Amino acid sequence: MNGRGFLIYNGGEKMKQKMIIYDTPAGPYPARVRIALAEKNMLSSVQFVRINLWKGEHKKPEFLAKNYSGTVPVLELDDGTLIAECTAITEYIDALDGTPTLTGKTPLEKGVIHMMNKRAELELLDPVSVYFHHATPGLGPEVELYQNKEWGLRQRDKALHGMHYFDTVLRERPYVAGDSFSMADITVIAGLIFAAIVKLQVPEECEALRAWYKRMQQRPSVKKLLEIRSKSS
Amino acid sequence: MNGRGFLIYNGGEKMKQKMIIYDTPAGPYPARVRIALAEKNMLSSVQFVRINLWKGEHKKPEFLAKNYSGTVPVLELDDGTLIAECTAITEYIDALDGTPTLTGKTPLEKGVIHMMNKRAELELLDPVSVYFHHATPGLGPEVELYQNKEWGLRQRDKALHGMHYFDTVLRERPYVAGDSFSMADITVIAGLIFAAIVKLQVPEECEALRAWYKRMQQRPSVKKLLEIRSKSS
Repeated sequence: MNGRGFLIYNGGEKMKQKMIIYDTPAGPYPARVRIALAEKNMLSSVQFVRINLWKGEHKKPEFLAKNYSGTVPVLELDDGTLIAECTAITEYIDALDGTPTLTGKTPLEKGVIHMMNKRAELELLDPVSVYFHHATPGLGPEVELYQNKEWGLRQRDKALHGMHYFDTVLRERPYVAGDSFSMADITVIAGLIFAAIVKLQVPEECEALRAWYKRMQQRPSVKKLLEIRSKSS
Repeated sequence: MNGRGFLIYNGGEKMKQKMIIYDTPAGPYPARVRIALAEKNMLSSVQFVRINLWKGEHKKPEFLAKNYSGTVPVLELDDGTLIAECTAITEYIDALDGTPTLTGKTPLEKGVIHMMNKRAELELLDPVSVYFHHATPGLGPEVELYQNKEWGLRQRDKALHGMHYFDTVLRERPYVAGDSFSMADITVIAGLIFAAIVKLQVPEECEALRAWYKRMQQRPSVKKLLEIRSKSS
């Protein structure tokens, strides 16, 4: 690992923590962790190692040894601990400085943020991903060894319904899980990033969702991510 | 709500909190929250309201108004807040008494527990559920309005691979996310409960997983749950 690192608050003592993230800069799921890192001012503390999904590197034994599920991103700590899954990585980095800002402090905040985050996965981001992998060319025939088009098309429709749902949510509150920005907003942002990749338009009538997304794109963390994406895609 | 309740620690002050949970006693996903409640000694503080999945009550408008995704369990607080999704409900109840025991205290514990919990969903519990709903009669033709058998059978195979994966994990450590019992163990337990429902045997060669499950079934929280299940199924 290079010299990058970050002083962490780990149960009372400050420790130097180096972090590697295996991901792909333009990926919608990696965007979740990159935005979270930027929100926590930790982006510069991480060394990014690129995994080429188009070459199927995430399905090769050496990567599957890092993450059984074969997905990016994966966080590696200097003691070799590997943490996969965006919610898990976000929980980790949010707690590093002892003051969670993305995953909630009180029981109620934790419960609502985790519910809306999971709902954003279930009803928007993951369905778009399944549509991409099963009902579009996806990562290409070398990588998409099995496709179920009927299932993929149903997931596309589910994602569109999900956009209407989040539109109703955002008509009533400024952020996905309530009055402040959280991990749940990041997951909906990733869903809309992926939707744009597969040319799934946010319906015109989803005015609140569209306005919210414009607002989110002004956040420095999201602006930075979108810049990185445009350079690398 | 009846007089049941529980003193909670909410950012410094103790508050009386009443809780209703809409679920079905024999359900594998409800088992996740019932086991968590038992682990936290809160089971008696909750009023359970039964939702009949076989009659499709979870897909009716009045229930969908409680949970857009139409799944159980759903937690309702005395101020009317509704929290769906087992991980979110577990995060909430685990933080209620100010001393999380299921979702981790340090950044590392939080990260690893949430990763293994999500992996247990992705690689075992959810695939068994999709197999049940799409490649078996599931909840019956009145409720299962769309089935994709090919997809369901692939998910069955994914779940069996998942059992082998968790067997390798449990050859090296006493619990799914490390040295102590956590939310991740509960999700694997729910996966094996659901596997038994659909008659998906844990392979003989998965000795560590089988031994771990025997051990888990001795825990008072799991024993209680299995008793409730046998009475109500």
